[in-house]
Order: sequence, then structure tokens, then C-alpha cells
Amino acid sequence: MTSPLVIAVDCSTTAAKAIIVDGKGQHVGSGSEPLETRSPAPHWFEQHAPDWWRATDRAVQQALNEIGDRRAVAAVCVTHQRESFVCLDADETPIRPAILWMDGRADAEARRYGTERVELLSGKPADITPGLYKLLWLRDREPDTLARCRRVADTHSYLVHAMTGRWVSSTASVDPLALLDQATGDYSDELLELAGLQRDQLPELVPTGTSLGPLRADLADAWGLRPDVTVVAGTGDGQAAGIGLGVTDPGVAYLVLGTAVVIGSETTSYLPSRAYRSMVSAMPGQTTVETFSSSGTFLSTWFRREFGDLDLAGAPDPALERAAAAVPVGSERLLTLPYWNGAQTPHWDGRASGMTLGWQGCHTRAHFYRSLLEGIALELRSQLDGLERARGQRVDVIRAMGGGARSPLWTQILADVFDRPLEVCASGEVSALGAAAIALDTIGEYPSLPEAASAVARTDAIVEPIARNAAQYKALRSVYTRVFDEARDLLHTLHDLPDLPSSDQARGDQS
Amino acid sequence: MTSPLVIAVDCSTTAAKAIIVDGKGQHVGSGSEPLETRSPAPHWFEQHAPDWWRATDRAVQQALNEIGDRRAVAAVCVTHQRESFVCLDADETPIRPAILWMDGRADAEARRYGTERVELLSGKPADITPGLYKLLWLRDREPDTLARCRRVADTHSYLVHAMTGRWVSSTASVDPLALLDQATGDYSDELLELAGLQRDQLPELVPTGTSLGPLRADLADAWGLRPDVTVVAGTGDGQAAGIGLGVTDPGVAYLVLGTAVVIGSETTSYLPSRAYRSMVSAMPGQTTVETFSSSGTFLSTWFRREFGDLDLAGAPDPALERAAAAVPVGSERLLTLPYWNGAQTPHWDGRASGMTLGWQGCHTRAHFYRSLLEGIALELRSQLDGLERARGQRVDVIRAMGGGARSPLWTQILADVFDRPLEVCASGEVSALGAAAIALDTIGEYPSLPEAASAVARTDAIVEPIARNAAQYKALRSVYTRVFDEARDLLHTLHDLPDLPSSDQARGDQS
Repeated sequence: MTSPLVIAVDCSTTAAKAIIVDGKGQHVGSGSEPLETRSPAPHWFEQHAPDWWRATDRAVQQALNEIGDRRAVAAVCVTHQRESFVCLDADETPIRPAILWMDGRADAEARRYGTERVELLSGKPADITPGLYKLLWLRDREPDTLARCRRVADTHSYLVHAMTGRWVSSTASVDPLALLDQATGDYSDELLELAGLQRDQLPELVPTGTSLGPLRADLADAWGLRPDVTVVAGTGDGQAAGIGLGVTDPGVAYLVLGTAVVIGSETTSYLPSRAYRSMVSAMPGQTTVETFSSSGTFLSTWFRREFGDLDLAGAPDPALERAAAAVPVGSERLLTLPYWNGAQTPHWDGRASGMTLGWQGCHTRAHFYRSLLEGIALELRSQLDGLERARGQRVDVIRAMGGGARSPLWTQILADVFDRPLEVCASGEVSALGAAAIALDTIGEYPSLPEAASAVARTDAIVEPIARNAAQYKALRSVYTRVFDEARDLLHTLHDLPDLPSSDQARGDQS
Repeated sequence: MTSPLVIAVDCSTTAAKAIIVDGKGQHVGSGSEPLETRSPAPHWFEQHAPDWWRATDRAVQQALNEIGDRRAVAAVCVTHQRESFVCLDADETPIRPAILWMDGRADAEARRYGTERVELLSGKPADITPGLYKLLWLRDREPDTLARCRRVADTHSYLVHAMTGRWVSSTASVDPLALLDQATGDYSDELLELAGLQRDQLPELVPTGTSLGPLRADLADAWGLRPDVTVVAGTGDGQAAGIGLGVTDPGVAYLVLGTAVVIGSETTSYLPSRAYRSMVSAMPGQTTVETFSSSGTFLSTWFRREFGDLDLAGAPDPALERAAAAVPVGSERLLTLPYWNGAQTPHWDGRASGMTLGWQGCHTRAHFYRSLLEGIALELRSQLDGLERARGQRVDVIRAMGGGARSPLWTQILADVFDRPLEVCASGEVSALGAAAIALDTIGEYPSLPEAASAVARTDAIVEPIARNAAQYKALRSVYTRVFDEARDLLHTLHDLPDLPSSDQARGDQS
């Protein structure tokens, strides 16, 4: 008897990526198809929702071409970019392009409608990302869109509909729209009313791991699969990454070292706090809590592009890494507050900006670079401390993934600043592996999701903290944690200064 | 009848430079001989005093080789590095190397002995530069040197002795030793007692412009000059630069844009304040007041060395200047506190360090560079405001010289931040021209020193402030002036953090 295979799709912001995984959690095939993002106005980011399906279809077909027996495929599960959604008319046609998670158009709506009550219901600090504020933007500024809107589809329900013909989604996948009552896991009448939506405009909710029925017959045929292949309800890419890293209990955290950085962990009940955003977990009865900072590899790439080897155009630079590794811990008292894109968890302060303090003549280019990496690590440590305080339970081990996990310098700094072992997974499609684990659990290959997660999870290296460095970073933290409180007024005043020109103005680009 | 010529020597830190100037203030010959500085320990800077004379002799001979009729030379006048001094034994031989103005060994002595009383008497904020604190360092740590010391000679009196055989100096030249009572212009018994010195160990004091008698006969012979060539009492290089720029009344200020930056102006009486250091002026009955910041071209050179074109190794970079000139005023809200070498006037705070605040993703390398230049300008404006407040009189025009005056970008920023015309003298030996003006006045070529100063002064360009830019910098100043007050505690805590390693330690270089 052949070991069953599962197809896992990660429909992320940049591409749809498909992998095929066997019953032992081994990766046997893969495919990838890029997605185009358009920015028709400053801070606006949109995609064409039918591209989600087109790219997914192509990525799956590429992956299927890499395996032998397609009849061994038993299930398909999707993970995806979160918060993004599309409005469809009565013909299930997009009325306008999908609005993406990082689209910043709803800043004013977040400030206006993001009351404590809304934060408490949704479990999410008010900022530009939750779908709710973009729906309110549409309600107030594009009323025609909502008037014609028959369905609001998150990325997951859009793809599930394409595969099964059903309008159904996992509670965890819909949750980032911020229309759910986090305490009950069902749509909140109060939040629906605020957004001006009816329940029947939104997908039916089921738990992650639920079988949603077979693939459409024509699709199973086109893919060359058995007609009984089941579509399994997935979850968003953050939670899926946690599962792909084997993070299923509160003692472990996942750390996403991407353009933005995220720390995620599990709690066994909904504990509202501004120390994180709360999300419906893929693990039954649990809540996933996540901190968020937009200053991740965004910042190291910015540095390399602006101050690095011009020929490398921002790509990783081994010579710079070596030079920064030779700079002592603490960058000889050069300290960076990494708020290049404002402050997120727990401040959610768009008037904040970055700071570098302690400049002396002895500092070099490598000091500045190391100080940025240290600043991001110190910010993450503050967020981790806040997360632990709010939920009352310590994180013992951190599992890191994403582009930043490929820097031995940065992962050592992180282990030292966290003063905890950092288990590094620097390779593979971690979110897709999480979706594969969900599918393997659903088809009965493992007795539980944690066991399926353990089977797919990979660790490329374990970085242990160096005790002396950890003590030195602890000293530095005593200053770092004061910086924003003491400089906040200055940064706000600088942000609010009238009459200062911007390059946009200099270019005549009135936005 | 031939127009008389005068020889002016600037015995600076890096070289002895001689120029020969005619009665119209025109430069007709020049010579230069480098000086070697030794740094036998961190922050120590020493020179061999006999080199002062050897280099002066050579520079004068080079200059004389450029003119026709040596018999037209009527006078010699010396300007010089300030605060530097040498201890001589009974044979007029140096007991140890001369200790230079920028030598930092007496930091503890400045803090210990630099009382309000000493500051009031000497007219100088306590810091490492005044000779007094280095004399106290010798008294406490090299008692043998002071026990054998027959004479303490500043650079001017050392050179005058070499030229005339007399131990005499101008009051203005001796003043930087901080042994004078600023209110009387004579040695202070109290300060002499503190330093453990007797009056007869120090040069006789005469006003700037006094004829000190003829050159030694053998020297006049060696230089091919008339035996009656007179040696004229000069002044230090800062005040001489002021005269060389024609700055002789309180409505004008000189701005030295060197490694360090200085604003100097005149007052008609001694007005003690920590807003400046007070010095005996070359103008009879006046006091010269000067602000000081060690962050001048030091900072722009640091930036170009660390972040600039590697091939240029810190030299001016026209492409970088152009890019920074294209960045809008205010560097899109990126603001720099330029305390890379601590804070000087009026804070005199060695625990201060630099800060850059307001970082955003839109900022480029050129933004950082422009922000440094703006930060230095904003610091200078704060110092100018303090100077004006303390002495109760406005500066209407600023005359700039030094390496930084060759940057059109920086001089425009300065004019805009000062909101005043900046008259730029980007060429020539400005301090030596000041000494030439003193000599021309003494030999009667001009009715007064101001008129002689006007004759030698050159203006290469007048940079007018741009009203819109000035208004924008005024807005930025409202933030800048708060930065150090509000961040001081953070910077001090960062400076004082124990247990952080330095590169010195990493290199095993225990200093």
C-alpha cells in the first residue's frame, strides 16, 4: 500500500507555492507561480483575486509534475496571506481589485473606529491591517462597491470555492478580517453591523482541519487526481508557519524573520491584551497570539541598499556580515530604535520613527549595521517580555524562520538578546509544511495535529545563547526599554512639524 | 619708494606657514613646512618645541625666495596654535615634549580644579584645552618637570625668543594658558599659585601689535633682511583668523569651519558666561568671545570615510554633495545631534554622544549626510544665539573660512540656518593674513588695525539666506533645541553602562 500524499498550497503575497508531502512529512514535489501586486496610489496595495486561483492552479500542476503516482494524493490544504479580501458581485465576479493586508488606506478608519470595544471583540489592536477598517473605508468612500457586494471572500474562501464550489472557510482564515467575536469564535453581530454586512455575505465557518468535501470533478480530472481527494480547511500563513515549525504549545514560540518580524505563540484561552493580536488558532480551543513589527529584514536590506556595496543592490553581503560580527556586543554603545516604519506592538504609533543614539567617532559602517540588527532584536525581546507578562507564561524555546534566519550573525544576536536557545529553520516552505501537517492529521496519518506538526518540522541549527553576551545585552536593555518613552514627544513633534518639504513635493508628486 | 613688506607666520598644529604681504595687503610670497605630532598614549598629543622654530625658519626662507627685494621687509609677526606650551630648563632646553591644545590628558584635572571661581578668573569653561589643567597634570603627575622648569613658554613666546632673544609675548597669545585674570589682563596670582608657578617663569606681557625690537642680527643676516626689521607681538590663530577676515567689531562674527568649528566675535568688555570662552583680544580694550564644537569637518569626513566612495577615502565627493543638495531642507525630518566627540559650548559634557532621530524608510545615504551638515549648522546656530544672549548684541554678518567653506551645499545650509548672509573666504591663509594686518598696522601703513584688517580681508562669495529655507530651519530648530535636554539622561546612561566591551578590549589594547 502506497503512503498517501498531500498537496499544500501557500498563496502568499508574492507567489502561490505548492508542495507535495508524503505520510512521513517528507517533501516530494514543489511548484511556484509569482503574483503581481499593484500600487495605484501611495500606500495602496492590490491584487487581482482571480490571479490567486490561476497561480495556485499552476503551482499545483508544477508540483504534480514532480511526483510519480498522482493517485496517491489524498488531500489538499491551503494557507495564505492574511487580512486580504475581495468583494464579489452576484455573479461571483470581483467588483474591484482585492485589498491586501499591508494596504495602508484605512489609517484614518482604524483611528476613528478602532475603539477599545472593537479591539476587545476582535482581539486585534486597531491598525491598518485588519480587514474591518478597509471594509469601513469601502463603506464610506466606495459605497457602490458594498452596495453591489454579494460576498466578501478572504483568500482562503476564494480558493476553497474555486476548488469545491462551496463558500466555506476556516474560522482561523476568516479571523483576520476582524469580524469575529474572539471570545466565541463566531461572527460578531456588532462588528458585522459596524461594517454594514450581513452574515450571508460571508463564508460559512468551520474549524481548521475540517474536510470540506471533494475537489470539483473537473478539477480532479484536470489535475489527474482521484475523485475523492478531499479539500481540508487551512489557516493563515502565520499560524501555519507556527505549525510547520512544530509550535503547538505555549512553551514554544515561532519567530518569523521576514520583511516584518512576528513572534507567535499559543494560549489556552482568549486573554485580551495590547501586548499582541489574538487570533483563532488552528489548534482546537486555543488562541494564537502574535506580536508584530514592520522593521525586520526591511531594515537590514535598507541599510545594505543605502550604505552597502552598490553592486550587491541590497542583497546579503558576507563581507559586511563578517565586519559586523567583529564589532563587540552593544556596538560600542551605539543603540538603534528600529521604528523606520513607525512602531507596532504594543505602541501602534504611526508618528514614531527610528533613532540611533550614542554615535562616537570610533563607530564604523559595520557598527551601524550591527546596531540595526541589535535594535530589531531588542525590540523583539521587549515584545516577547510583553507577551509573556500578558499571558502569564514563559516561552522557553524560540523557533525562527524566514530570510533573516539565514544570517548566523543575526541569529546569534537574537539568541543572546532572548537569552534562550533559538532553533533555526532556514530552508523550505514552512507555512506550506504547516498546511501539509493539517492535511496529514485530517486524513488520519497522525493521531493529532501536534504529532503531524512534529513530523514535518525541520531544524537546521540550534543557536545557544552565550552567557556573557546575554548579560551584556541585559544591561543594554535597561537603556533600550527607556528610549521610546523618553523620546516619544520629540519624535511626535518632528513628525508633526508643519512646513517641512518632502521629496514627494520636490518631485511635484502630490499624494 | 618701495611699498614695505611684512612677513606673517602661522605656526599651526600641522605646519608652520609663512606669507609675505605688501602694503596694500596683497600676498606676494609664501612657504610652508609640516610639523610632526606624536601621540605616545591615547588622547595625548605632543610636539618637539624646537620643531616650531625649525619649521618657521624654513617656511620664512621659502617665502623670501619668492620675492624680489628682501630689503623691503619691515616687520615679522607670528600667529600660532593656542594653549600649547613647553617647559624649559635653566639652559632653555625643553624638559619634555610640548603638550598641545587638543591633548586630552588633563580631563580629570579640568573636572577637579575647574571651579566656578577658576572659570570666572580665566574666562574659560573648564575643559581639556586650557594650559592650566595640563600644568596641574604636570604638577601632580610629573613633579620633576615643574621642579626643573625655569620657563613656561607658549608657542608665541618660544618663537619670539628665537627671533629676538627676549622672553616676551602678547597678552592675547599667553591668555589660552588660563593663567591670566581676564578682568585685568595681567597674570592672576591666584591662578599662578594654583599652578605652582612664579611670575618670572612666564613671559613678560605686552599688547598685540607692540614692537618687540629687531630680529637677532645673525637671523636678519641669514634671512637677508635689513637689521632693523621689527618683530611685532601677534596673537593666537583664532583671533588672527578673525582679523584676517576683517572681524574687528561686535556686529560681525568669524566662523571657522575646520575639523572643529568655532564662532568668534568681539565684545567691548569682559562679560563672563558659559555661552563662550573669553579671550584677550588683539583689538585694544576688547575681549574676543568664542564658541567651540569639536564636530566640524571631523563629522563630514567621518561620514565620507565610513559611508562614502571607498576610493575617495574620506575626501570631498562631488556626487555625494549633489545628492545631498537634492534632498529637501530638513532631510525629510531626519535630525542629527552632532555630538560624536561629546558636547562642548555651552554644555561641556564628555558623556554626551551623537544622535540621529526621525529615521524612515524613505531616507537615503544622502539624507544622512545632509542631516549631519544640518545638525552641525543647528548646533552652531544654538551657540550663536547663546553668544548673542550673553553679550546682549546681535551678530549681523558672519564670515566663514576653513575647509568646510569650500562646500557650496554646507555654506548655503549655514546661511539658511543662521538666517544671515554668510561671507565666505574659501582660500588663502586667513590667520597669517590677520598677523600681516597686525604688522602693517604696527609699521604705520594703516591708521588702525580695523583698517589694516579690511585691507587684507578677502571675500570669495556672499551666500544669502533663502527666506523659505530659513523659515523651515526655524521650525526644525524648535525641535533641535529640545533634543539634548530631553535625551541627556539616556545618553549619560548609555555612556556609563558598565560591562559593555569596546574594540580596544576586543583588540587586547588596554589603555
